[in-house]
Amino acid sequence: MTPDERFAALNLELPPAPTPLGVYKPFLIDGNHCYVSGHGPLLSDKTLIKGRVGADMNMEEAKQAAQQVGLAILATLKQNLGSFNKIKKVIKVLGMVNCTSDFERHPFVINGCSELFAKVWGEDNGVGVRSAVGMGSLPDNIPVEIEALFELV
Amino acid sequence: MTPDERFAALNLELPPAPTPLGVYKPFLIDGNHCYVSGHGPLLSDKTLIKGRVGADMNMEEAKQAAQQVGLAILATLKQNLGSFNKIKKVIKVLGMVNCTSDFERHPFVINGCSELFAKVWGEDNGVGVRSAVGMGSLPDNIPVEIEALFELV
Amino acid sequence: MTPDERFAALNLELPPAPTPLGVYKPFLIDGNHCYVSGHGPLLSDKTLIKGRVGADMNMEEAKQAAQQVGLAILATLKQNLGSFNKIKKVIKVLGMVNCTSDFERHPFVINGCSELFAKVWGEDNGVGVRSAVGMGSLPDNIPVEIEALFELV
Repeated sequence: MTPDERFAALNLELPPAPTPLGVYKPFLIDGNHCYVSGHGPLLSDKTLIKGRVGADMNMEEAKQAAQQVGLAILATLKQNLGSFNKIKKVIKVLGMVNCTSDFERHPFVINGCSELFAKVWGEDNGVGVRSAVGMGSLPDNIPVEIEALFELV
Repeated sequence: MTPDERFAALNLELPPAPTPLGVYKPFLIDGNHCYVSGHGPLLSDKTLIKGRVGADMNMEEAKQAAQQVGLAILATLKQNLGSFNKIKKVIKVLGMVNCTSDFERHPFVINGCSELFAKVWGEDNGVGVRSAVGMGSLPDNIPVEIEALFELV
Repeated sequence: MTPDERFAALNLELPPAPTPLGVYKPFLIDGNHCYVSGHGPLLSDKTLIKGRVGADMNMEEAKQAAQQVGLAILATLKQNLGSFNKIKKVIKVLGMVNCTSDFERHPFVINGCSELFAKVWGEDNGVGVRSAVGMGSLPDNIPVEIEALFELV
């Protein structure tokens, strides 16, 4: 199965590709690499999941939000590349969690995105290096923001 | 107009290129890419703008500080490359804001740097991918720190 | 002296290479570059140094923790490359400190890792660009997390 076929089999809905909230590009190709800007948990109705992990939501809800961030990143890739098959592999993910200072389960949360990528591009190509860390705050009080680097086919 | 000519037309003053505060290089060339370390809002008198956004300064002041960070990055590029014309385009910016946990306008703040880069290298080449996020703290209590990746001509 | 010989002369003990705490690879080769995921201060007995800088430990202890993070990164490099001689140079380090919001000495802390890398690969090749910043929290309440990018020989 191709990445496009694998994604279709998941029966997940892509939100609309997000429009920039500032002076940046959501997506940029550099040689055989493709960078995506920090994405938030954009829903299909164009609203954002909001709240601080540990105060407004628990870690299972935050993991779900991280999956939604992954879907927003996929929407950006789809819009710009036309197909997930154009991505050879995930190189790097930076997963940023907006949480209370006593929160300790950032890797669990960011797995929501990483497990999605692993399903689309496979256990090897879909998994790259990663940092999963806790921020003091995030734009619009979103719970999770993720930026990523991919290698193109 | 070239990037150097565009910058001259802005009538902005470059601070002195910052000297490292630790064991790192402010600038590094890797093939046709150029990385710059996290920079702070260094002023022409070599002092730093200090304070926490949301407590000690508002978002307009913080945006101005982000522009000053952009000028410090330009000073580092000028010192190491001799000319802004050596930069082909902005690839990536990581904008980090030292703010209270209820702050939500990080993209607005980091635009202070991004708008400067867009004026120097143009609306397309001067704008790359970006994340704009809230830190728990920053060195010397500066309000903004920005690191960037550029493609060389 | 080679990097391997320089490391041996330091008489420092490598912890076991850390196993992933989530869906990511600790190490990834991309052309002539090598990325390492965010690493924590893993000790030889496989426990982690824990605590928040400014509350549970002072900056000297945090610097020591950052050195231990550096050793954990070296352990990952050794396991995957077999030798530190396979690394040509350090390109980029992102040093993340879990600290109270009034903490200002992040560069001092991250020097614990950067000085180690400078000893292994030398004052020029062992020193890259860097950002040293304060997080709201880190996984398992570790005081320091560091990710890095290297150029391979």
